[in-house]
Amino acid sequence: MDKKIKVAIVGYGNIGKYALQAAIEADDIVVAGIIRRNGMKDCPPELMGYKVVTEDMIDELGQVDVAILATPTRSVEEYAKRFLAKGINTVDSFDIHTQIVDLRRSLDKVAKEHGAVSIISAGWDPGSDSVVRTLMQSLAPKGITYTNFGPGRSMGHSVCVRSKAGVRDALSMTIPVGEGIHRRMVYVELEEGANLEEVTKAIKTDPYFANDETHVFQVDSVDELNDVGHGVNLVRKGVSGQTHNQLFEFNMKINNPALTAQVLINVARASMRQQPGCYTMIEIPVIDYLPGNREEIIRHLV
Amino acid sequence: MDKKIKVAIVGYGNIGKYALQAAIEADDIVVAGIIRRNGMKDCPPELMGYKVVTEDMIDELGQVDVAILATPTRSVEEYAKRFLAKGINTVDSFDIHTQIVDLRRSLDKVAKEHGAVSIISAGWDPGSDSVVRTLMQSLAPKGITYTNFGPGRSMGHSVCVRSKAGVRDALSMTIPVGEGIHRRMVYVELEEGANLEEVTKAIKTDPYFANDETHVFQVDSVDELNDVGHGVNLVRKGVSGQTHNQLFEFNMKINNPALTAQVLINVARASMRQQPGCYTMIEIPVIDYLPGNREEIIRHLV
Repeated sequence: MDKKIKVAIVGYGNIGKYALQAAIEADDIVVAGIIRRNGMKDCPPELMGYKVVTEDMIDELGQVDVAILATPTRSVEEYAKRFLAKGINTVDSFDIHTQIVDLRRSLDKVAKEHGAVSIISAGWDPGSDSVVRTLMQSLAPKGITYTNFGPGRSMGHSVCVRSKAGVRDALSMTIPVGEGIHRRMVYVELEEGANLEEVTKAIKTDPYFANDETHVFQVDSVDELNDVGHGVNLVRKGVSGQTHNQLFEFNMKINNPALTAQVLINVARASMRQQPGCYTMIEIPVIDYLPGNREEIIRHLV
Repeated sequence: MDKKIKVAIVGYGNIGKYALQAAIEADDIVVAGIIRRNGMKDCPPELMGYKVVTEDMIDELGQVDVAILATPTRSVEEYAKRFLAKGINTVDSFDIHTQIVDLRRSLDKVAKEHGAVSIISAGWDPGSDSVVRTLMQSLAPKGITYTNFGPGRSMGHSVCVRSKAGVRDALSMTIPVGEGIHRRMVYVELEEGANLEEVTKAIKTDPYFANDETHVFQVDSVDELNDVGHGVNLVRKGVSGQTHNQLFEFNMKINNPALTAQVLINVARASMRQQPGCYTMIEIPVIDYLPGNREEIIRHLV
């Protein structure tokens, strides 16, 4: 009998909720508990029946094999280091592409010191898309890959717009126009007396938007546009050996937090099968993301 | 300075030719030589400048790290065992899906006994498609995956038709009609006096064709239809966590032997980074298929 993997979900926002659902559906995983800043205070009803604690009370959860960090990206490193120092594996969906190598170095050291495993940037991009990009690169070593995102919300761009004077709420949609170029469709809910023209100018001149075709629309309620659907179209055209015009394409249309959470559960499982250290998803055999007998997986999927 | 990987190409048919091209293009790989049944006899002109020997003369090639088995699928096991017994890694594109688990067991034993690595079934299907199928399965653990092949030649079906009385040459094209169902378009060149109706009946009642919609056409020259283009459309619709209707799709339009050969070069490289034993492609981190510095790969592709 395989021992089940005991996970703690750290943070119970959007990703945390979906991570709980994905953990419930995984037969080889049990939820040791949920770690929230507020503990049981204002605890959502679906958490009745689970241990819900603040981080300093983590010992109340008993054995925890993996901490699933469903926290904001910017606090991942700090949380990860604390859990790794306790010998608990960590997984996260850290998504600042330019800082992944630094985070990996930093967590690798801590993980190895404490005999633990950390798998970082495990969402869909970075994450499962990275696996496909790497595979495509290997299949046609020369060529160009384009990652086309959307249609779907960009969190970073939405936050940027919300920071502008006169904006009560905002949503920035990323629309793929091909070859890795994106159009931005920005929906703003304005504060009383705010001027759409001025807000539009402030958005279009911000470095976040300055290089992309950007359209700004005023709406009564940003909340009514809320949809967590997203997508990707990853294409590579290149050369295998000396043979040109090899064509590869990967498409997804997905619920964004549901997929991110599923990936986090998959890497939580995979973390139990790696040597101490810090890894990105492309450094782990894809078979390790699945539960069950290896020969059966090979029989059905190879 | 990294030491280059010394490969021997075993068999110089269609795949062997493309494997040589892919090896030439890979900066981290050198061709120690080509092993042919006939050695230098009737040697194609492009092999001038390479050592070309029969298998019993392999010592003339000096150090060989990896033997790339570009042999018929049915002789892979025998060849692999002989090279593994010399401590030489082997890679192949063994493509009989139902026998992969058995081959893996058999070669795993020999590989471990001699401290060598074998990577099997490394083409595009089985092979790179298997990596995508496994990844998709992990992203939506419940659901259905369909692998739609073609349009492209089916070697197995073509060989089957050629074995029929009255058939001089034949080509069976696999046409995807969706949901993993395929239509067979069979082109036959008949021997003098052969009857198309009888040949058609013999084909359609063969177990290879009995379950698929099959059309048989008589042509003057099968050779004039020769095109090594192929393709795949791999789709999965399923459930991430508790969220339904997650949609995934992978498409390729490729030169078949060129891609198979590129994959063989990639796994030859990856074989140098594994512990002794036998592996399928889903058991190897995709980063190992690429040359170069790991942090640079992570920086560019994750």
